[in-house]
Amino acid sequence: MEKTSIPKVVIARLPVYIQKLNQLMREGRESVSSQEMAEYLGVTSAQIRKDLSFFGGFGKKGVGYDVINLLESLRSILNLNQIWEVVLVGVGKLGQALLSYQGFSRKGFEIVMAFDNDPNIIGQTIAGVKVRDVSEMQNLTCPRNIPIAILTVPAGNAQEMADQLIHCGVKAILNYAPVTLKVPEGIRLANIDPVLSLQTFTYYL
Amino acid sequence: MEKTSIPKVVIARLPVYIQKLNQLMREGRESVSSQEMAEYLGVTSAQIRKDLSFFGGFGKKGVGYDVINLLESLRSILNLNQIWEVVLVGVGKLGQALLSYQGFSRKGFEIVMAFDNDPNIIGQTIAGVKVRDVSEMQNLTCPRNIPIAILTVPAGNAQEMADQLIHCGVKAILNYAPVTLKVPEGIRLANIDPVLSLQTFTYYL
Repeated sequence: MEKTSIPKVVIARLPVYIQKLNQLMREGRESVSSQEMAEYLGVTSAQIRKDLSFFGGFGKKGVGYDVINLLESLRSILNLNQIWEVVLVGVGKLGQALLSYQGFSRKGFEIVMAFDNDPNIIGQTIAGVKVRDVSEMQNLTCPRNIPIAILTVPAGNAQEMADQLIHCGVKAILNYAPVTLKVPEGIRLANIDPVLSLQTFTYYL
Repeated sequence: MEKTSIPKVVIARLPVYIQKLNQLMREGRESVSSQEMAEYLGVTSAQIRKDLSFFGGFGKKGVGYDVINLLESLRSILNLNQIWEVVLVGVGKLGQALLSYQGFSRKGFEIVMAFDNDPNIIGQTIAGVKVRDVSEMQNLTCPRNIPIAILTVPAGNAQEMADQLIHCGVKAILNYAPVTLKVPEGIRLANIDPVLSLQTFTYYL
């Protein structure tokens, strides 16, 4: 099946399945019902069964899903059985927090390079990563073919940084700048802007 | 119309409309077509017209939407013409970055209290907010009726903090802890976990 023929929302739910399955595994659970997965994800159990049917049959009627089997399968589907290199651009307060966040490497995402334009930050080593001058970014990243970038730069710099990274082979960008980037087809983009979430809350408050 | 009768995905798009309209206003633009909005949001122009039809007619055939009118209307629909008080729990590196982030107050979200359990952080003032002992959280927040909380605590503490905040009147939680929280019906919850986004990328890479 073509990768793009599975709905994006289904793919976006798979990491949440993995989160839940990891938790169940730590608790020593051997199986889980579609109903329990459904409650965790806030969807129907029919939706769970439909999601997983895209990738083949996993469950047994009346028994549910084998936790370890399903976890291994989903990790394999998402290509998570390898280390993914990540470049981080923008080492302000948020960038520093992300560099220090151990949740990335624990999940197989290794920030291997970091860039900034502030002379006070350039040269510092944060969580084992030396911050380099952003003017060297293309020279240093192009040869390494790093597939993923995290952008924690001001809104005004984000598009230019994205363009440079894509030019150097980056295929997916996690963008924290409060601006919508334009990227060529085939480049994956996800935006993390907490203000957008807060502004959705206030509709209901 | 009942607030909950409009699809959540429509409400979640409105802040992105506002982001685009703000940009157009800064550029001095007076009107915008549904086609241009559609390209920005990555949906069809029919979807844009359908979204906005939930709230009444805004556009004129052949002219498009009046930028300032639509912006004012959407801001009013989302209740953004007021200051919203926010409490932040967990003043580690990420919490400190969020406290210092000016994008919140610029958009009408004011972090008025911050709590942590680390004696080295308690008592410090960060971006004008004094960090208080989390053991005082209920005493200090309950009387103030703060509607929104940002959770930047470790996964293991997140549910207990959420429970305490909801007990004290918090109605919406922006959760950065990598765990899915259980909240009563009627409480709004949004999760920000960058690893989930990265794990979605790797499917396509």
